[in-house]
Amino acid sequence: VPDPGNPGATSQTLADVSEEALLARIFPLVATPDTGVTLLGPGDDAAVMSAESGSVVATTDTMVRDRDWRDAWSTGADVGHKVVAQNLADVAAMGAVPTGLLLTLVADPATSVAWVLDLARGVGEAARAAGVAVLGGDLSSAPGGTLMVSVTALGDLQGRGAVRRSGAQPGDTVAVAGTLGLAAAGWRLLDRGALPAGAGAGPPTASDVAGRAVARQRRPHPPVAAGPQAAGAGATSMLDLSDGLLRDAGRVARASGLVIALDGGALAGDIELLTPVVGADLARECVLAGGEEHSLLGTFPQGARLPPGWRVLGRVEASNPSRGPGVTVDGEVESPRGWDHFAG
Amino acid sequence: VPDPGNPGATSQTLADVSEEALLARIFPLVATPDTGVTLLGPGDDAAVMSAESGSVVATTDTMVRDRDWRDAWSTGADVGHKVVAQNLADVAAMGAVPTGLLLTLVADPATSVAWVLDLARGVGEAARAAGVAVLGGDLSSAPGGTLMVSVTALGDLQGRGAVRRSGAQPGDTVAVAGTLGLAAAGWRLLDRGALPAGAGAGPPTASDVAGRAVARQRRPHPPVAAGPQAAGAGATSMLDLSDGLLRDAGRVARASGLVIALDGGALAGDIELLTPVVGADLARECVLAGGEEHSLLGTFPQGARLPPGWRVLGRVEASNPSRGPGVTVDGEVESPRGWDHFAG
Repeated sequence: VPDPGNPGATSQTLADVSEEALLARIFPLVATPDTGVTLLGPGDDAAVMSAESGSVVATTDTMVRDRDWRDAWSTGADVGHKVVAQNLADVAAMGAVPTGLLLTLVADPATSVAWVLDLARGVGEAARAAGVAVLGGDLSSAPGGTLMVSVTALGDLQGRGAVRRSGAQPGDTVAVAGTLGLAAAGWRLLDRGALPAGAGAGPPTASDVAGRAVARQRRPHPPVAAGPQAAGAGATSMLDLSDGLLRDAGRVARASGLVIALDGGALAGDIELLTPVVGADLARECVLAGGEEHSLLGTFPQGARLPPGWRVLGRVEASNPSRGPGVTVDGEVESPRGWDHFAG
Repeated sequence: VPDPGNPGATSQTLADVSEEALLARIFPLVATPDTGVTLLGPGDDAAVMSAESGSVVATTDTMVRDRDWRDAWSTGADVGHKVVAQNLADVAAMGAVPTGLLLTLVADPATSVAWVLDLARGVGEAARAAGVAVLGGDLSSAPGGTLMVSVTALGDLQGRGAVRRSGAQPGDTVAVAGTLGLAAAGWRLLDRGALPAGAGAGPPTASDVAGRAVARQRRPHPPVAAGPQAAGAGATSMLDLSDGLLRDAGRVARASGLVIALDGGALAGDIELLTPVVGADLARECVLAGGEEHSLLGTFPQGARLPPGWRVLGRVEASNPSRGPGVTVDGEVESPRGWDHFAG
């Protein structure tokens, strides 16, 4: 991606610039409007962030080239958007409002400066869109071929308790905020070599959905505000769907010692949406097991009014000796499947 | 490094274990006594840490195999100690007390489980020694050969302002807490293939110093408590010596628009200590430009009483049109040298 302000940028690599010169070009791209949170920003040994409610939520998530993205599919800005989104989703899933982030880049010195600036642009855009301050970070060089981006996100519970995975109760309503399966369908489309230009105007068509799916794979769009809203509405458990609905719901089920009973009918619309672009079988698999969606899965006390953007997927049931904690769809036990970083 | 509790561990790789099984073995190794800081530890989407004084200091620093360590020289536990130490030094250099940390491991699935558990053991030891909680982290797989460890450290200013690089004033006393040049001398000794067994009893000998130097290269020992003590004593600027005395003092000089005038006599003892093990010329270079020491460099108002562990290195002088901000030794301008991540 050429940088119009720096005509030489496309041919420069990190080996051609000093760390300080590179940082001087990165800082303006990740600058964020003053939200009152940043007491001291990038450039010193550490940053300082206000934490007025007396606690801070902290999480970290990393993306590695050729594991978590492919340069043929994603620009530097796409990677920046995605690594920020993943981290903001984790903060939101605790019921917290994301406030600040740290960015780490570990790069082969042969990496182009233009790619790094594009990454910074994506990080800055995603941070500004969420009202989150870029507090600082770290640059490191790496052996040939390595390119890795890591973010630590910090957040504020605003005086509420954290919404954990272990708090679901029998009888609770299971609900989701955000889409299901789009990012996984987008991965399949990219893997097939289909690179649709994006959604057009008018009512949705198969190719519009394909465009949305590919866009979601490149830049997840977690419903960040839905996290603290769910906490305010009394959510008993919550997590973000990073590794697939079944695997992540299974985590809530085991942590809470209960059964997450999903209603197949509640998933039918998600499956139907994706069927024209990936076929019915794969659409079901994307919705049930597709990772990287970063929607929020929560449980709410029976009868609680769900905040905007949340829709019911099922309910929480007690486990018993003949049926341990797990996930069912229309009463049938579904084997946990989805992404495992090392075992695949 | 064999793990006596798990006889099969030496042959296992990350590809042989699930993420959850690996985490279940890591968590006890990084467990820290309750310091009241951890409101929610590892295992959920994010951790929660108390921040009673209403702000949080945040920094992150990464180590990459074959850039920041070599397996022939450092065990996994050494790497764990070092990555924690680097981050704690950054927090301390703001005048803050380190409180919590997040650990990220990005590893080729062929990495041995034993190495990862040894890393976790080192991280846990360093965290417990500093009274810092391990709050959580992230595991990611990486393409063949890649091994990378990153830490984000959080800290508490205890109601004081952050001590920045830019606050030095003409007339201030320049002081250091901790050693100079040991880690760089240790690197030279390791590079020569000298691997002394460590310091013995009795008065220091050349080989004792060599042992200390190698140990310091493997496991830096930043004077963490000296940071908040300096802040309490009115330090006007501070940073940790990660890239060498001249380069880091140059950062204070430029940020403050002043000259850091070092007294060669104050460095003579540091140089003399290292001369028997690396020779006089290299000893001077290690003291002036050696990185990874993670001692603290601070400036204090003239006449301020230095806290324990701090010793005077020189003073701050005004810059003028004929002499811009920079570093001098006995009045001679020293060219900034030391470590730059990409330009070398």
